[in-house]
Amino acid sequence: MPYVRIEMLEGRTEEQKAAIAKVVTQAMEDHAGAPPQSVFVVFEDVARENWAVGGTLISQRKPAAS
Amino acid sequence: MPYVRIEMLEGRTEEQKAAIAKVVTQAMEDHAGAPPQSVFVVFEDVARENWAVGGTLISQRKPAAS
Amino acid sequence: MPYVRIEMLEGRTEEQKAAIAKVVTQAMEDHAGAPPQSVFVVFEDVARENWAVGGTLISQRKPAAS
Amino acid sequence: MPYVRIEMLEGRTEEQKAAIAKVVTQAMEDHAGAPPQSVFVVFEDVARENWAVGGTLISQRKPAAS
Amino acid sequence: MPYVRIEMLEGRTEEQKAAIAKVVTQAMEDHAGAPPQSVFVVFEDVARENWAVGGTLISQRKPAAS
Amino acid sequence: MPYVRIEMLEGRTEEQKAAIAKVVTQAMEDHAGAPPQSVFVVFEDVARENWAVGGTLISQRKPAAS
Repeated sequence: MPYVRIEMLEGRTEEQKAAIAKVVTQAMEDHAGAPPQSVFVVFEDVARENWAVGGTLISQRKPAAS
Repeated sequence: MPYVRIEMLEGRTEEQKAAIAKVVTQAMEDHAGAPPQSVFVVFEDVARENWAVGGTLISQRKPAAS
Repeated sequence: MPYVRIEMLEGRTEEQKAAIAKVVTQAMEDHAGAPPQSVFVVFEDVARENWAVGGTLISQRKPAAS
Repeated sequence: MPYVRIEMLEGRTEEQKAAIAKVVTQAMEDHAGAPPQSVFVVFEDVARENWAVGGTLISQRKPAAS
Repeated sequence: MPYVRIEMLEGRTEEQKAAIAKVVTQAMEDHAGAPPQSVFVVFEDVARENWAVGGTLISQRKPAAS
Repeated sequence: MPYVRIEMLEGRTEEQKAAIAKVVTQAMEDHAGAPPQSVFVVFEDVARENWAVGGTLISQRKPAAS
């Protein structure tokens, strides 16, 4: 039954998502007693211009002074 | 007022979505007394590599043995 | 697979939700070809002080002049 | 800590989103006491064929009679 | 049309939410051209035991050493 | 940055949620390279009358024949 929605910056590979889904599903089984087949994990890839932190879009952040 | 969000695997056509939105909106009017113009239905098309069931991405499922 | 999330003002009964879930699930089967057992419908009951339209919380709307 | 998710019809520019994120983050600081760096604002651009109002997809609305 | 969902730690007052909803709706009008009556703002009050940052539930954070 | 939202049937304890949040956050660090402090995990406890599978509310499921 558990529905896990993961919103993260775009750019992660299918293999990274496969690994995350596997661990998250196992955690729901181990710690919430949810049968794996009942666990949905859905990813949303968010563009940098669609995510702001501290009032600034990530796409508009100034690179840190080197 | 009701906000209905439908997340489903990508690939459904505009006509399928139009039919679903119509039935869902009618259901909110019939069973929740919501005026149709106040009902939002929003679809999210999810790629197979972004949806896992049982810890496996749908894009990585092995086809059933024939 | 489809995940349907319905956010609406609190106050609807269990029977209203049962009726909505039945119709919505049937619509996903009829128009999106989704097997009913794969369809999740989740309701969120939202308090009037937690929903604003036009910048005003519903709990703070002035009743219409009679 | 606050997580603000804004779903709107696609077509807004990066500058529009930057301006919205700035005001929303300031509002969370001013009225909820949230430190700006803890405020996430995430936008979702929704296609017109993925948004229905009153049971009709916006992409299928008939233009108003002139 | 825009749907703004604000998830934040529980404890904010109705007046705080009213002020936030007003500013957010104005921002959608000013910067996204959305008519105020079409803007939904929905709040979700999240308990401290239901929000984790850095892998720790906020309800289980150790107070900073004084 | 990743925002992980976990919707599950109500009834899990704070300790179960703490364990899940820890594993999920570690998975985001290990497999998505996300710094733990940037990972939000938010739980939503859903009542059985608010979750339907196969068109039936979980609160209205008939117990399996023994």
